[in-house]
Amino acid sequence: MIRLVALDADDTLWHNEPLFTDTQARFSALLSRHTDPEVIEQRLSETEIRNLQHYGYGVKAFTLSMVETAIELTGGKVTGEEVAEIVRMGREMLHAPVDLLDGVGEAVRELSESHDLMIVTKGDLLDQETKLARSGLGDFFTDVSVVSRKDRATYEGLVAGRGLDPAEFLMVGNSLRSDVVPVAEMGGHAVHIPYTETWAHEKVDAARLTSVRYHTLPRIHDLPELVRGLP
Amino acid sequence: MIRLVALDADDTLWHNEPLFTDTQARFSALLSRHTDPEVIEQRLSETEIRNLQHYGYGVKAFTLSMVETAIELTGGKVTGEEVAEIVRMGREMLHAPVDLLDGVGEAVRELSESHDLMIVTKGDLLDQETKLARSGLGDFFTDVSVVSRKDRATYEGLVAGRGLDPAEFLMVGNSLRSDVVPVAEMGGHAVHIPYTETWAHEKVDAARLTSVRYHTLPRIHDLPELVRGLP
Repeated sequence: MIRLVALDADDTLWHNEPLFTDTQARFSALLSRHTDPEVIEQRLSETEIRNLQHYGYGVKAFTLSMVETAIELTGGKVTGEEVAEIVRMGREMLHAPVDLLDGVGEAVRELSESHDLMIVTKGDLLDQETKLARSGLGDFFTDVSVVSRKDRATYEGLVAGRGLDPAEFLMVGNSLRSDVVPVAEMGGHAVHIPYTETWAHEKVDAARLTSVRYHTLPRIHDLPELVRGLP
Repeated sequence: MIRLVALDADDTLWHNEPLFTDTQARFSALLSRHTDPEVIEQRLSETEIRNLQHYGYGVKAFTLSMVETAIELTGGKVTGEEVAEIVRMGREMLHAPVDLLDGVGEAVRELSESHDLMIVTKGDLLDQETKLARSGLGDFFTDVSVVSRKDRATYEGLVAGRGLDPAEFLMVGNSLRSDVVPVAEMGGHAVHIPYTETWAHEKVDAARLTSVRYHTLPRIHDLPELVRGLP
């Protein structure tokens, strides 16, 4: 029996990747006099991945990676005005409207009537908390956990800390790598709801997928029925 | 009876404020050709406080505030090289050695034999986790909670989520505002261990102190005995 349903937030409850994609495009445009867009996007992506170990996930990390990339790509010739614009772009991301995915409000409300719901997400602590508050969904969740990584150990700690067996836990999210595979590997239930765009870093080797079982839903509307139907 | 002892981390377990003070001095020196040190420090402090609502606490927020202050103070004339140096200073803070306060190792080990211990801290999630790992104290704590604010509601949620009464909870820290007053106000036990330097933002109105009861220790060495002696 499922006793706790956990949901990822970014690109599962609300749109997130388009905000990063849009900001990347603005960043490329800003630096277009220095070099061409493909090089800029490639370098930004490399900087982001390299900085995960220092900064972790989220908008502040992304902003610092944009600043660093601008400095590197221009050989230190980026102007104070351009850096100011980058900081402003990051700030705007923190205040962007929270745009729920279709069907999320209804599915979450319905599930909350039968199950304890929590959010398990990466990113900036304050940013995720304020997005949840602005989403209007806050009352449906009994707990929010912002974590620095979503690996098997994270989920095992989370389940054990609540006195649950892995089989009593169900995780829902758009990332096979972060939301699905580690949960299935520990013996929990996992539901994959693909999002239209996926950050390259969140992709997973096909080999890891052959040895685990999980559910796939095209959209969140059918999640309450799936949860009710589990043994 | 105390069932859970929570400790603040920065400037309670390990030195932290000197790292910020040192970096501020380096920042002032970097911009000294533009304006004088007192103005720089004053403006950086104002930017930090103003940005708390956007960025929350921690090194990434502080780095972004340094960048913003440099742009403002120079009227956008800060160079890419100078911004690069600021980003590098922030990065170095994330990798600075973890320098335990005197007596912390012994006190924490002794307390962990009789009580569940947790850390409750603000700051960057990943940074606090890696500092705990590098401190060598990780095994003595059963839980780490990085929170976006330390107010009464935060502590009430933390205690209730663990099925405890406030009177079964004891918090230890160097900040009257964040570690002591809100805990005492909810009916928990609080121990203040002053640190030599306190960030101005963490200071508290004297009026709020007259209506609460808490313990003060000059140093952490006496904490195990204090905890044992509580009813």
